[in-house]
Amino acid sequence: MINVAICGATGYTGLELVRILLNHPKVAIKALTAKLDKPAKISEVFPELYGRLDMVCEELVVNQVLKKKIDVVFLALPHNVSMEYAPRFLDKGKVVIDLSADFRLRDARIYEKYYGQKHIYKNYLKQSVYGLPELYKNRIKGARLIANPGCYPTGSVLAVAPLLAKNLVGKDKIIIDAKSGVTGAGRRAALYLHFGEVAENMKAYKVGVHQHIPEIEQELNGIAKKSVNLLFTPHLVPLKRGILTTAYVGLKKGTDVPKLIRLYKSFYKQSAFVKVYDDGSLPQVQDVVNSNYCAIGIALSPDKRHAIIVSAIDNLQKGASGQAVQNMNIVYGLKETTGLV
Amino acid sequence: MINVAICGATGYTGLELVRILLNHPKVAIKALTAKLDKPAKISEVFPELYGRLDMVCEELVVNQVLKKKIDVVFLALPHNVSMEYAPRFLDKGKVVIDLSADFRLRDARIYEKYYGQKHIYKNYLKQSVYGLPELYKNRIKGARLIANPGCYPTGSVLAVAPLLAKNLVGKDKIIIDAKSGVTGAGRRAALYLHFGEVAENMKAYKVGVHQHIPEIEQELNGIAKKSVNLLFTPHLVPLKRGILTTAYVGLKKGTDVPKLIRLYKSFYKQSAFVKVYDDGSLPQVQDVVNSNYCAIGIALSPDKRHAIIVSAIDNLQKGASGQAVQNMNIVYGLKETTGLV
Amino acid sequence: MINVAICGATGYTGLELVRILLNHPKVAIKALTAKLDKPAKISEVFPELYGRLDMVCEELVVNQVLKKKIDVVFLALPHNVSMEYAPRFLDKGKVVIDLSADFRLRDARIYEKYYGQKHIYKNYLKQSVYGLPELYKNRIKGARLIANPGCYPTGSVLAVAPLLAKNLVGKDKIIIDAKSGVTGAGRRAALYLHFGEVAENMKAYKVGVHQHIPEIEQELNGIAKKSVNLLFTPHLVPLKRGILTTAYVGLKKGTDVPKLIRLYKSFYKQSAFVKVYDDGSLPQVQDVVNSNYCAIGIALSPDKRHAIIVSAIDNLQKGASGQAVQNMNIVYGLKETTGLV
Amino acid sequence: MINVAICGATGYTGLELVRILLNHPKVAIKALTAKLDKPAKISEVFPELYGRLDMVCEELVVNQVLKKKIDVVFLALPHNVSMEYAPRFLDKGKVVIDLSADFRLRDARIYEKYYGQKHIYKNYLKQSVYGLPELYKNRIKGARLIANPGCYPTGSVLAVAPLLAKNLVGKDKIIIDAKSGVTGAGRRAALYLHFGEVAENMKAYKVGVHQHIPEIEQELNGIAKKSVNLLFTPHLVPLKRGILTTAYVGLKKGTDVPKLIRLYKSFYKQSAFVKVYDDGSLPQVQDVVNSNYCAIGIALSPDKRHAIIVSAIDNLQKGASGQAVQNMNIVYGLKETTGLV
Repeated sequence: MINVAICGATGYTGLELVRILLNHPKVAIKALTAKLDKPAKISEVFPELYGRLDMVCEELVVNQVLKKKIDVVFLALPHNVSMEYAPRFLDKGKVVIDLSADFRLRDARIYEKYYGQKHIYKNYLKQSVYGLPELYKNRIKGARLIANPGCYPTGSVLAVAPLLAKNLVGKDKIIIDAKSGVTGAGRRAALYLHFGEVAENMKAYKVGVHQHIPEIEQELNGIAKKSVNLLFTPHLVPLKRGILTTAYVGLKKGTDVPKLIRLYKSFYKQSAFVKVYDDGSLPQVQDVVNSNYCAIGIALSPDKRHAIIVSAIDNLQKGASGQAVQNMNIVYGLKETTGLV
Repeated sequence: MINVAICGATGYTGLELVRILLNHPKVAIKALTAKLDKPAKISEVFPELYGRLDMVCEELVVNQVLKKKIDVVFLALPHNVSMEYAPRFLDKGKVVIDLSADFRLRDARIYEKYYGQKHIYKNYLKQSVYGLPELYKNRIKGARLIANPGCYPTGSVLAVAPLLAKNLVGKDKIIIDAKSGVTGAGRRAALYLHFGEVAENMKAYKVGVHQHIPEIEQELNGIAKKSVNLLFTPHLVPLKRGILTTAYVGLKKGTDVPKLIRLYKSFYKQSAFVKVYDDGSLPQVQDVVNSNYCAIGIALSPDKRHAIIVSAIDNLQKGASGQAVQNMNIVYGLKETTGLV
Repeated sequence: MINVAICGATGYTGLELVRILLNHPKVAIKALTAKLDKPAKISEVFPELYGRLDMVCEELVVNQVLKKKIDVVFLALPHNVSMEYAPRFLDKGKVVIDLSADFRLRDARIYEKYYGQKHIYKNYLKQSVYGLPELYKNRIKGARLIANPGCYPTGSVLAVAPLLAKNLVGKDKIIIDAKSGVTGAGRRAALYLHFGEVAENMKAYKVGVHQHIPEIEQELNGIAKKSVNLLFTPHLVPLKRGILTTAYVGLKKGTDVPKLIRLYKSFYKQSAFVKVYDDGSLPQVQDVVNSNYCAIGIALSPDKRHAIIVSAIDNLQKGASGQAVQNMNIVYGLKETTGLV
Repeated sequence: MINVAICGATGYTGLELVRILLNHPKVAIKALTAKLDKPAKISEVFPELYGRLDMVCEELVVNQVLKKKIDVVFLALPHNVSMEYAPRFLDKGKVVIDLSADFRLRDARIYEKYYGQKHIYKNYLKQSVYGLPELYKNRIKGARLIANPGCYPTGSVLAVAPLLAKNLVGKDKIIIDAKSGVTGAGRRAALYLHFGEVAENMKAYKVGVHQHIPEIEQELNGIAKKSVNLLFTPHLVPLKRGILTTAYVGLKKGTDVPKLIRLYKSFYKQSAFVKVYDDGSLPQVQDVVNSNYCAIGIALSPDKRHAIIVSAIDNLQKGASGQAVQNMNIVYGLKETTGLV
């Protein structure tokens, strides 16, 4: 069995990790931490766990967690907080899967610009592996520190990676219009997350300044092996879970949909969690909710010079905790889909 | 024109007052107050008002408000806060319509028990008129301090008042099962109001201890002219606006639905905002949303010994701000429906 | 492996059966039927199944289904349709788990009154076992025809059974106010199920005439060993899944909450899927969504003479398909929780 | 008073017309028609109107409607149906405001391609005026047949018109990613509109083939005085009302946001219902719901070569019935905002 700790167990990604790992045949949850007024059972915070996991959430103290003989630490902590803890678990030989952004950006200056704080552990950035298995499975196999991708980047990068990898993308900006459910904003008291402000409402936000922009750029540049020209706009829509990403990609030359579908199916043929839809079908959020799949559909502009790629993921699964478990499976040589739906 | 001030303009009831009064032909909004980090235009807080009302929300300072030559003050303030301000406006001869609970309960000890704080202006309780026009229109006409009813009490009292007034109610407990949308909880940051906690969820809450229980009891007792036996359970359901109240009332003797409908229609025949439905129809929340109506439908148990009364209101209109304007209309001798839908 | 057929696979309960059984370690799905314009893969109807179950949904022809060497047939068919098929599978020695109401009511006349059609297979009613494992596990073990309970009856009966069984209930009517999400109404085109009619709306419906009333009465009468006096009112609320049931039960004599909780915990101590909450906690729908649990919380009226019992279930799981699989597990001597969460 | 008939009163746009016109000081509703099994009062179909408008909805028979001495006919009928009735009212000298698409497209062949039916009254296309007051107020003043714009075209055209009119748009495709609430799909029984299929879901649909594409193209081409290159993608999101449109427009040369805002404010300075937001603010759907406003916000890509224009409208108001009344006001020389919020 793989013994795991979940740090930050009372957020939405923490809860999703618990849900997944409780059904994982090779994992034992050994420690939970959370910032609470006083220690409480996870099942008191989330009564759905009552009788299934009644473990107490402790304050996060590294030595206390280490005592539980854990193998893997999932850090479901806020940005800038993960940073402090990851090195301390790594130095004790633990595998760290960090769901925050702290080790995703290779350039610490960009991190500091978008996240507004100094990066105090730059030396760990080099060993960090970006945990998008569809692109980096081999590197993940040997990783000790996995920077689990952001939710928007997962949906965006998977949507356009094949076009960039095959060098089909023209000079137009890649325009990505993404729409997210509300759990992506975290489980915390905030007026703008009040049901009364979200239901029957929708908005674009952080246009041009969203912290996932440099992450998407880093990955797209890496695939394209050059600097891509990205315009990314996130939107908040009134549902709990799910991201629908609509990417508009200008092509070097005209093509047709079946050709693109073949390309995508081929590109993702080793990727158990990517479903490329057949001609005429586009994914909906409900196709992937509560699962670790990314579903992708493809259409073309009438002049066949723009691909419209639609991807759907569950932001808490493939966009966070599901992907984190997928990464753990890869590190441990398990079947990638173990414990995941 | 009636010059009004709205104190607490940035809550849901404050906003609803602004919306209504902007379309009221006899009212001029002269002052807005709110607790903000710094003074801001109401249209910055609620962009829907941009270009329609760009007045600045000031901090609440009584003398500043009085300078605006106001006639009526609407207090859309939290419980325990209204209490401090109402007397000061009253003492200057203003009409005060208080949307909080501070002057609703005639017995200050009960207030203190349910609201957890001393009542520091008990002497004003006597002049306070409970602002439910369907029962107390005459008293409201001459009132200077109107205690605008709570949302649950409005839906509950209107549902069962005719049965009590006509002395038809038997010995069984009156069971009221009420379901409310989320704006009833106020516009404030709180985890339990997060979209992720409310959508696809529902719950009973504050069973037996909800602060509206003594208010409903006071009113039902007053109508019945004796102590009624009430069991009231509120529920939170995932919609923004609306309360559906299902009241189960044991009857002294069997009756039939058409007879009850006639009774209700007769009881409310002077009440412009109560709609009693015909046999076979029950109200839905969408019948009253964005309006000041209370819709009431009536059914009977198979043995005809229990009436099942269903009422629907919009908690921000008839349950708060619409009713407040209705009360103002009555005080000023306007047609009760002026400016209301 | 248990070979199963799901008849009516394209409804909400059919889809939920597929979801559950795909993860069941002892089950192989061998046949799917649906009423479609032409045979289609289940994964075309529900793209979430794409790549996970691409089996074709055939028209329901008994002999065709039998060819697949099935052991168990789940009938997720409309009322009045199941009736025609159950006997034909039973006569071939198959275990039939019927999610419709067709074999739930022991008295065919009551069936005919509430479901508006003749019962043409009354002789099969005798061998039918009501599939509520918390009450009838022993009978279910040997059953060939299981009448899987309705969603409202499951939530209602589990809420009040212990009080009736222990003879604590007084003479007042048992009042059950139930609130259901929309999938309970089935997956079909109907104006009243339109998102525009359901969102931001809520209503009571079928008051006094809902077809689940006689089913609840039958079960409560059976537990009480006499005729109980029930008043059941269903409500439609804007969420997809979940039923919250608030039951108001007059007691023979006053009691206290801890005593009732002990009683409930004892009553359900063999019931893996019932969670009785501790004093001060009441269940929410989100505690049970996507699981087969029924969560129960208990409060008392101030005079301690009325119990307020709140139960929460997922209408598609414990209220339908999860319970059906639970029943299958019991019939086959598996651990009751196998394949269920 | 202007006497009006509303044909198709039981759809969402018909109901919205009734709501608006009941509060319009210069209008009397004289006739309602609907396709019903038998004539019924509008207040039976929509209980919110009970006591406010109890007029019977008749079957649509032109001569019957004409008997009511009407001045204006609002046709809130399905596409291809309006076409048959508009000419018959026009020929009798009535003003016709058609909310369908039947007289919007000047080229009947394009109509036939996108709406799948012959256009049988092409000769009326010439006199039809496209009812977007922000662009065509002068023509609307003298119009007898007004083709009220589609919901998506209203939000899209208003978002990009100033850039095209000022010839600032470069060669890149204009990419419009629009997200709509569900009432835009009409009030009718359809599985894909079921709450269970819409809530917690979202999707792109009719990519490249949506019937509003040629309408948007016609208008943008007209403003640009040349053929624009448009890529329009509609999305369905889980809310009742509202369209958020995100337009990505490549510019001929770099600019800055304040300059664009000045341009937009200047372009719309005569337009009472367009609000251009200040720098740093983008509109949300809740800013315009239940109003006839179109709110517009502007951002730029980091390289300042792409404008990101976000517009928000209420699809039933500015996207349909509100705009229809605005058009009527203009035809009758009333203040444009009469009766509208």
